[in-house]
Amino acid sequence: MDKQALYEHIIAKRSYLCVGLDSDITLIPDFLRSGKDPVFEFNRQIIDATADFCVAYKPNIAFYEAMGGKGWETLQKTLEYIPKSHFTIADAKRGDIGNTSGLYARAFFDKSASGLDFDAVTVAPYMGYDSVSPFLRYRDKWTILLALTSNPGSADFQRLETSTGKIYETVLKTSQEWEGAERLMYVVGATQAADLAEIRRIIPEHFLLVPGVGAQGGSLEEVSRHGMNRSVGLLVNSSRGIIYAGNGSDFAEQAKAEAKKIQEEMALYLDKFL
Amino acid sequence: MDKQALYEHIIAKRSYLCVGLDSDITLIPDFLRSGKDPVFEFNRQIIDATADFCVAYKPNIAFYEAMGGKGWETLQKTLEYIPKSHFTIADAKRGDIGNTSGLYARAFFDKSASGLDFDAVTVAPYMGYDSVSPFLRYRDKWTILLALTSNPGSADFQRLETSTGKIYETVLKTSQEWEGAERLMYVVGATQAADLAEIRRIIPEHFLLVPGVGAQGGSLEEVSRHGMNRSVGLLVNSSRGIIYAGNGSDFAEQAKAEAKKIQEEMALYLDKFL
Repeated sequence: MDKQALYEHIIAKRSYLCVGLDSDITLIPDFLRSGKDPVFEFNRQIIDATADFCVAYKPNIAFYEAMGGKGWETLQKTLEYIPKSHFTIADAKRGDIGNTSGLYARAFFDKSASGLDFDAVTVAPYMGYDSVSPFLRYRDKWTILLALTSNPGSADFQRLETSTGKIYETVLKTSQEWEGAERLMYVVGATQAADLAEIRRIIPEHFLLVPGVGAQGGSLEEVSRHGMNRSVGLLVNSSRGIIYAGNGSDFAEQAKAEAKKIQEEMALYLDKFL
Repeated sequence: MDKQALYEHIIAKRSYLCVGLDSDITLIPDFLRSGKDPVFEFNRQIIDATADFCVAYKPNIAFYEAMGGKGWETLQKTLEYIPKSHFTIADAKRGDIGNTSGLYARAFFDKSASGLDFDAVTVAPYMGYDSVSPFLRYRDKWTILLALTSNPGSADFQRLETSTGKIYETVLKTSQEWEGAERLMYVVGATQAADLAEIRRIIPEHFLLVPGVGAQGGSLEEVSRHGMNRSVGLLVNSSRGIIYAGNGSDFAEQAKAEAKKIQEEMALYLDKFL
């Protein structure tokens, strides 16, 4: 999916919501657990309930790996169930030496090899250019690089000052020079909205994947005010706030209500800030 | 496996070799490909041929993920085949917000959840303390933190100077303060041997996982001279140099010869530097 298609879907749906399918077998409603594939059934109902209000889905791969090989099948079924109109992100935060990063890219981008065919994958920048470039070689795929993450530990290393700015600023600036940089997006936590204006000065045109609205407490209004650009440029993620909005037989209805609420707020911000 | 057991195995075998099972379905000998599980058969023969000369095995998870759910089964069969005497490392370079890192830890440490039960997992430090602590909570497991990696891109961010030293030095110093730090090991590339003496000043007692001897060109002699401590403190990895030493029906014999050669060199360094 190219940038134009993503933008048009956002405008048509008046939403830049990404639903995070962080579906933990130990946390989904009890009554699903007797089924053959409880997590897939959970995801299926969540997707049916929320697809009208969001433009993207983001399964966090950890939740599927934690179930072993069976989890990988659940992930594949989930990905195949997501409507083709929706942008799909493998939230994997992968990265290794070049040779090996090529295998990670194969795992998430090459259906003939792994059964998976995501639009995008999140990648950790610690190992530098040659750990990221194998993902960028896929010319019809997106590589979402961690920049300033939403969690408390982001302060440990990402905020350290160097001669070229803070570490996360250096990640933003340096990666702009890489071949295929037009296929990059960046993760900036919603909890970091105060830094968004400055981040936008460094990367005015790139899309941002913004987790942390919902359970982690970030403000959607601040994120939208400071982060939106002329192509919208935002995919704001909510996982637990939506998928665990309810815990009974009406969990999907409750997820729908939460997603709808966020979409309605986003529609206001599209009017206000775009 | 605790530090004492690892040390005793190294001394008994006169080897600190770790064999990296980076088994790529497209690179293993052709004649294996007609079998039911070619990568497992490859690994089985490599393990049989090399177990006498090494103390650890390190499958890089990317190579198994790239085969989808089936790859996860191959990984599990491989792990179960490795002798209980050998230290097992899931080279996964994982890391995410706390909640999610807990799922990654579950994936590699909790056999009842995922079918896998590794001794150790490699973890990326970019997201800081709360992304690493869920792994450290497993009191009988090891967390191997990336510090100074073997690849060219290590220079992009790891070598940036801050007021507390280079980024990788700050990772080493900061992580020493974390709860469970005694369960940490660190990845330092063999190509970075010139920095090993300084690294040992910061972390004299911790084990180092050292990739990059072999295909990536690091010097085993330099690594051993500068990196060995009184508990040996080194697990030196070779993947492609051993597992692809041969490409015909005698590939296992060729792998054995290469592993034996490295072990014999290591025996000399144990005499010289321990």
